[in-house]
Amino acid sequence: MRESRIMKPSEGTLRDYCGLFGILGDADAPYLTYQGLYSLQHRGQEGAGIVTGGADGRLSGSRGLGLVVEHFTEARLRKLTGDRAIGHVRYSTVGANHRRNVQPLLVQCALGQLAIGHNGTLVNALELRNELESAGAIFRTSIDTEVIIHLLARSGQARIEDALLQVLPRIDGAFSLLVLCQGKMIAIRDPYGFRPLKLARLGKAFVVASETCAFDLIGAEYLRVVEPGEMVVIDDQGMRSMQFTPAKPEPKRCIFELIYLARPDSVIFDRAVHRFRHRCGQILAQHHPREADLVMPVPDSGNFAALGYADASGIRYTYGFIRNHYVGRTFIQPSQSQRVSSLKLKLSPVPQLFEGKRLVVIDDSIVRGNTSRRIIETLRQAGAREVHFLAASPPYRFPCYYGVDTPISKNLIAAHKSIEEIREHLGADSLGYLTIEQVLQAARRELKNEEDFDIHRQGFCVACFDGSYPTLGEKVVEKEMLQSRR
Amino acid sequence: MRESRIMKPSEGTLRDYCGLFGILGDADAPYLTYQGLYSLQHRGQEGAGIVTGGADGRLSGSRGLGLVVEHFTEARLRKLTGDRAIGHVRYSTVGANHRRNVQPLLVQCALGQLAIGHNGTLVNALELRNELESAGAIFRTSIDTEVIIHLLARSGQARIEDALLQVLPRIDGAFSLLVLCQGKMIAIRDPYGFRPLKLARLGKAFVVASETCAFDLIGAEYLRVVEPGEMVVIDDQGMRSMQFTPAKPEPKRCIFELIYLARPDSVIFDRAVHRFRHRCGQILAQHHPREADLVMPVPDSGNFAALGYADASGIRYTYGFIRNHYVGRTFIQPSQSQRVSSLKLKLSPVPQLFEGKRLVVIDDSIVRGNTSRRIIETLRQAGAREVHFLAASPPYRFPCYYGVDTPISKNLIAAHKSIEEIREHLGADSLGYLTIEQVLQAARRELKNEEDFDIHRQGFCVACFDGSYPTLGEKVVEKEMLQSRR
Amino acid sequence: MRESRIMKPSEGTLRDYCGLFGILGDADAPYLTYQGLYSLQHRGQEGAGIVTGGADGRLSGSRGLGLVVEHFTEARLRKLTGDRAIGHVRYSTVGANHRRNVQPLLVQCALGQLAIGHNGTLVNALELRNELESAGAIFRTSIDTEVIIHLLARSGQARIEDALLQVLPRIDGAFSLLVLCQGKMIAIRDPYGFRPLKLARLGKAFVVASETCAFDLIGAEYLRVVEPGEMVVIDDQGMRSMQFTPAKPEPKRCIFELIYLARPDSVIFDRAVHRFRHRCGQILAQHHPREADLVMPVPDSGNFAALGYADASGIRYTYGFIRNHYVGRTFIQPSQSQRVSSLKLKLSPVPQLFEGKRLVVIDDSIVRGNTSRRIIETLRQAGAREVHFLAASPPYRFPCYYGVDTPISKNLIAAHKSIEEIREHLGADSLGYLTIEQVLQAARRELKNEEDFDIHRQGFCVACFDGSYPTLGEKVVEKEMLQSRR
Amino acid sequence: MRESRIMKPSEGTLRDYCGLFGILGDADAPYLTYQGLYSLQHRGQEGAGIVTGGADGRLSGSRGLGLVVEHFTEARLRKLTGDRAIGHVRYSTVGANHRRNVQPLLVQCALGQLAIGHNGTLVNALELRNELESAGAIFRTSIDTEVIIHLLARSGQARIEDALLQVLPRIDGAFSLLVLCQGKMIAIRDPYGFRPLKLARLGKAFVVASETCAFDLIGAEYLRVVEPGEMVVIDDQGMRSMQFTPAKPEPKRCIFELIYLARPDSVIFDRAVHRFRHRCGQILAQHHPREADLVMPVPDSGNFAALGYADASGIRYTYGFIRNHYVGRTFIQPSQSQRVSSLKLKLSPVPQLFEGKRLVVIDDSIVRGNTSRRIIETLRQAGAREVHFLAASPPYRFPCYYGVDTPISKNLIAAHKSIEEIREHLGADSLGYLTIEQVLQAARRELKNEEDFDIHRQGFCVACFDGSYPTLGEKVVEKEMLQSRR
Repeated sequence: MRESRIMKPSEGTLRDYCGLFGILGDADAPYLTYQGLYSLQHRGQEGAGIVTGGADGRLSGSRGLGLVVEHFTEARLRKLTGDRAIGHVRYSTVGANHRRNVQPLLVQCALGQLAIGHNGTLVNALELRNELESAGAIFRTSIDTEVIIHLLARSGQARIEDALLQVLPRIDGAFSLLVLCQGKMIAIRDPYGFRPLKLARLGKAFVVASETCAFDLIGAEYLRVVEPGEMVVIDDQGMRSMQFTPAKPEPKRCIFELIYLARPDSVIFDRAVHRFRHRCGQILAQHHPREADLVMPVPDSGNFAALGYADASGIRYTYGFIRNHYVGRTFIQPSQSQRVSSLKLKLSPVPQLFEGKRLVVIDDSIVRGNTSRRIIETLRQAGAREVHFLAASPPYRFPCYYGVDTPISKNLIAAHKSIEEIREHLGADSLGYLTIEQVLQAARRELKNEEDFDIHRQGFCVACFDGSYPTLGEKVVEKEMLQSRR
Repeated sequence: MRESRIMKPSEGTLRDYCGLFGILGDADAPYLTYQGLYSLQHRGQEGAGIVTGGADGRLSGSRGLGLVVEHFTEARLRKLTGDRAIGHVRYSTVGANHRRNVQPLLVQCALGQLAIGHNGTLVNALELRNELESAGAIFRTSIDTEVIIHLLARSGQARIEDALLQVLPRIDGAFSLLVLCQGKMIAIRDPYGFRPLKLARLGKAFVVASETCAFDLIGAEYLRVVEPGEMVVIDDQGMRSMQFTPAKPEPKRCIFELIYLARPDSVIFDRAVHRFRHRCGQILAQHHPREADLVMPVPDSGNFAALGYADASGIRYTYGFIRNHYVGRTFIQPSQSQRVSSLKLKLSPVPQLFEGKRLVVIDDSIVRGNTSRRIIETLRQAGAREVHFLAASPPYRFPCYYGVDTPISKNLIAAHKSIEEIREHLGADSLGYLTIEQVLQAARRELKNEEDFDIHRQGFCVACFDGSYPTLGEKVVEKEMLQSRR
Repeated sequence: MRESRIMKPSEGTLRDYCGLFGILGDADAPYLTYQGLYSLQHRGQEGAGIVTGGADGRLSGSRGLGLVVEHFTEARLRKLTGDRAIGHVRYSTVGANHRRNVQPLLVQCALGQLAIGHNGTLVNALELRNELESAGAIFRTSIDTEVIIHLLARSGQARIEDALLQVLPRIDGAFSLLVLCQGKMIAIRDPYGFRPLKLARLGKAFVVASETCAFDLIGAEYLRVVEPGEMVVIDDQGMRSMQFTPAKPEPKRCIFELIYLARPDSVIFDRAVHRFRHRCGQILAQHHPREADLVMPVPDSGNFAALGYADASGIRYTYGFIRNHYVGRTFIQPSQSQRVSSLKLKLSPVPQLFEGKRLVVIDDSIVRGNTSRRIIETLRQAGAREVHFLAASPPYRFPCYYGVDTPISKNLIAAHKSIEEIREHLGADSLGYLTIEQVLQAARRELKNEEDFDIHRQGFCVACFDGSYPTLGEKVVEKEMLQSRR
Repeated sequence: MRESRIMKPSEGTLRDYCGLFGILGDADAPYLTYQGLYSLQHRGQEGAGIVTGGADGRLSGSRGLGLVVEHFTEARLRKLTGDRAIGHVRYSTVGANHRRNVQPLLVQCALGQLAIGHNGTLVNALELRNELESAGAIFRTSIDTEVIIHLLARSGQARIEDALLQVLPRIDGAFSLLVLCQGKMIAIRDPYGFRPLKLARLGKAFVVASETCAFDLIGAEYLRVVEPGEMVVIDDQGMRSMQFTPAKPEPKRCIFELIYLARPDSVIFDRAVHRFRHRCGQILAQHHPREADLVMPVPDSGNFAALGYADASGIRYTYGFIRNHYVGRTFIQPSQSQRVSSLKLKLSPVPQLFEGKRLVVIDDSIVRGNTSRRIIETLRQAGAREVHFLAASPPYRFPCYYGVDTPISKNLIAAHKSIEEIREHLGADSLGYLTIEQVLQAARRELKNEEDFDIHRQGFCVACFDGSYPTLGEKVVEKEMLQSRR
């Protein structure tokens, strides 16, 4: 469970990062984008924007802080017209004056009007930004997406495709991009394929989204993923694909998308997310058997893993917490009378359930440890005799530089403590994790069109567990700089 | 599952009705009331209000449409001061001009300032209202609570307790009441005890709430229920109890509180709600065994019953739907392009789960049948081979006149169709209900201080199942009038 | 000039009190009422409301704090439909929780739905209110209008006219009333005729308003005044008049309407307001000649009197102050850095105009004296050699109990100081007032249909100048009670 | 009188253009800027912004649509801190999505953070913008101010002063600029000095503003104008001046600032505005004597000219119209029932004043003629026997390219019609204008420190009257292009 998903402001916990949706060729494009963003809301609750292209070729848009349904009032939605649109949901630090950081960015430059939405993080953004500023570029935002726009505007190319082919090799890191300009929508995925990006059809229209759950909602038919290193150009004539750079021999898809970030009803990296999580729970049961009366998840992130554990172990499954769905960022929490913890506002322990019971409690991961500790404490107060805490992933030890907003190292509990020390800190009777190998085993392809690149690491980035950042090599200095930017 | 809980405007489905919270003797009373209402939000999402009593004895308040966190901004909350407060959450028909119907009502009359919050429905409200208007009373709202206020104002009594003792015997139906006036807070429960009302302590303060989940959130210690026919007067000197009318020989507590309305982590009528629901699921399994691969709830109302079924039957439990927590009443649903059903916005079927599977799907009840039908349809489209639908309660055949806003008879599917006809309408492979006896069996007390009044009907109102309205007797005409008011 | 007209919150200065507008028989009634209220905005800037009667006979309305154009957004206005409407603008004390005091009040009682707007003050309101509360009445507002409604609801009459005929003789003081109920609109003026109320036609529709400027704006044709003691009933059949009480032998029309309250382009009490004020200026010139270089008004309340003075004296007229039209109640005036006086925000002295000049400065009246003092000070700082200050009315010595919100006696500068003491306080080189006789001379009728009742006091209330309250007689106690209510 | 000043959206009438205010060295800088902008509100009612520099050197700001008091709520104002600030009010086309055009613009570039506010129009903005886009610049706004920022960012200079010295010679047209960066505030005026810009002191702080009325409000002491071609750099050490380009031999100050745009209580171009306008009225009287009973202004723009006419002619001065001060852009004017003209909403003719009278009506200028025609019509309907209309300026025949948003030529009535044709169009009994020579005569310096450059045209731009654009020379094509941009 991630606090930040619900309660603001979060401080240093893991956060979702961004969701993308685009469509070209449907008269309802703005509204469908609204629905698509709504289904991707879990990927960013703090800002939402839509840019549409009208019949006259002009792009216009609306962006704002808050949830999709908060910003897009009927009046705002009605103003958006056209048969093409791209949309974006994002997390951002709190504060009204950061409205300018909400995407998609929409600018006017030598290539005409241009709108871009970005999911990921560029590791060489600061370097490029300094270089661009020295060459006279003006920055209005503090997000790395603006660096891409400046590079495009300065490419000297007349066609957006040529500009992209020139610029994309210069940017490094994680990027799934959606570009809308007069006449075209372009979907791009970085050579490692860190972040998901998918294609579908809705009648004659083409649709692009971060997760398949967006397709399911609007009734679009899933086609395929955008491949690592691929650029897909969609216009009124149809869809063309080109490889803007050779794909890396081995993709580096973010394992944490499967573990926590994606919605359980999405299919990500050709894996059904819920099935992956269920399998993680089964593997946990196999390697961490416990004598217990009940298995329960930390809702909702631990739900499927806990089910998997229950199924494999035969221990009875139950809901131990009731989640309050009305928590929003607007709940007023006065500092002077902090009588109620934020945990209690979200999760209420079910009474008359734990008395004298031995519990297995399962969450998807442990990042800082604070929430886990309070959960265990709450369960003990409710009468639990034993609390065995299991994480359906390996110890989270290294910050992510590819699009997940993790705390700095000193706040990652597993970066400094042994598993036994963590157990003690949490106050659990026992503590268990999956190994990297086990989590990759759960991610092993089961689909029929399975291919063979899934050998070593099966094409996943597990840098948050082992520190092997795919793009940074031995650049220790750069790592430190990235670290300091947090 | 109730649509109305999530999506507005609902049309004729079952709705929660009201939640009450009050506290006297804590300097943080307004904020604690805000938290209490927040935990009772499931009992009414369309209006919220708080009235506080300050040190100067003056009452003042704030009321508005929307969720607790929507109406009570920091600025509004800051204006409320005092060591006593009562609060109310309510459903109401949509429309900004109904703000005046939001409770607690606050008036000035011969008894001084008076604030009242009401959970329930008076069956003789219209009669009393006509009588009062003829005698010169002015009505500003369309809610029956105002009738009580007029009766109090005209009692000719000098003390609020005396006024209440005179007035309460005249009102008929379901009422849990909280009254705040200068110096006192008074909690009242009708002689049948239709609706819950409970007492607790927080330090030196006394707390009253509809459900225990409010006590749990603020850390108050549960004392006891307000008894049917009891009036509890709380002031700075402490708490005094009096019986304003003899309790009925047998209480008529609303069985639907246990089945659906209350939060699963509450203790209602001395029953742990989640345990009651789990037991209903077990009984279902006993009387409606099915050959199936998976048991799944309609979230969240069917969760515990489905668990109970799974536990008793040994069939594997799973989550078949992912619920979107960002649905609010603000989601824009344009009539012209209703491409996405409201069901789909709330519940997404988990992919790659149902293919060829035989499912047992469990909800708490079936009211109109529309949602159930769409759920079954969705599951079949997702590949389910068989869908067995079970309701963890008896057929809902009669409208409630005691505080639950049910559709008129013609929209209650079980009022007109046999179970087999309903099954056909829903498109289920089989359909099962509990009997009234079975649901009462599940409600049988298990607590140690069990008493003996639980013989006939065990003290529950089951009029929605059998039409035996406790207060209306043979008054057929009155029933029809109540019906016509919907 | 009145500060309160522009800057909020005012503290104890004179304030406008209320404006009424009503129309029956035009499909555009709500919008015409909106326009009518807009033209009466000077009579009340702090709250506005409209109640309309639709084709179905139902009344509905919208009320809110702020200016007419602030509360009535397009969305709110669009909701109001019907061919009849009454509207009200009012002053009120600041504070969002006083929204309930905004008129017209709309209630449901034995007479059906009833809406009332009131301009004036009842001197026996408190007495009646106590009596009504003792008899069980419930009050929601703190305004005396609600007393009238309770009396009507309790009249036991079936027809609204009969109820009014019974109730109106019981209320004492100043009241111009507009009543809207199903089928009828009724206009009423108290037996003394303190406040204006006028009738007009717009096509087939009848129109009622406080001042003729409302008729001019919508293009309605002025018919006549509602007479003191008259009740005019308007319905689809036309207009009927009845005298609910004998008119007093001599009306007591508020002289301050002419002096300050009404708009200069209105015709009030059959006098053109601007002409009255101009004449006051002429009389001032006659009785207070000054050796001076320039005559200037305190804008805008002194404009016409200053013109009259200039015309009669031959001294050059000029604008000495530029008024800032963007001042509103929203200007932020932080207490900690009160560098700029509120006077300066509204009025800027014109530079290079006063150097060495002798000025005659004319305002309509002097209430507390604070503004006048600051004006004189400002002019001296701007270089004026002499400042002669003239009020185009007599010394304001007694609080008004008939609808003008004046400060309590101790804040009325003329209640305690001689003219010489006031002059000294203001810092003027000389100070002059009109006498009561002079101001009544200016009010002498000039219209052709002049009648003969204008002998003694010419039918005007001048209690604010001489303390002879028409309705209070020798009831010193009552006066003190009214005083204490401020 | 200009409609656009009051009623939105205006269509093609003359509009104010922009106001600037800046201060460095006062702890109250943000609030003083708020007050300064408030006093300059007449120069732009549709958008307002403030950028402040805090103790940490960081700039931050707030901008929004609407009036100063509308956008700057207490919460927004409280967030602004620091001892230096610049502010801007502007007109803009209506529409929420143009918020990004509100100034001051705040960017990050190689020179660090930079905020710029601009009053005027660049005639070579489009040319520069095309050039910059070709070189890779990205534009977010449609205002020419952004061109200046791009040029600065690309200057390659390290110091803002050097960047400005390099860039300013490249821009052509009218520009008064205020720049705020870390450590400095810089005030700039174009070589022709089209728009005013002034310096003052407030204690130790330096203040800059478009008009002196801003100094008067906050109590600052006027120092001097920023000279044409001058750049004044203000920092903690004090004020330094440099000439960024040789001043033109003859300044081209906008004569329309004196005629209409500036507030009458301002001193502009070393002239007291009110005195200039009064003198225009006197000259009108001398050259256009009329047999008449009354002289009246079109309020408020004709006020001082009408006074001047009355003083010179001896004809009695009066107010013929009462102006409604509550008109705002929010007045709802439904297209379907346009019963009331927008003129009537603002100006009500005073009744019983015009019957049989011969009037001289004076406005500052005639642009499209629509308002003048309706005014004359209204006065005739009110009974006027003769209406003589006089404009206190020459015929307005050519669009302005230097910062005043005039209609295109075809909507300028004097561009196509002779004076006699205009008179006929307006329906006046006679029509008179000043000549260019007469208006320049009125502008002749009277201050003691008079200098000698006021020979030919006295250093004023009168292109709107004679088409002699100072900067465009014979470039007919460019004129047409500017024309087409409207």
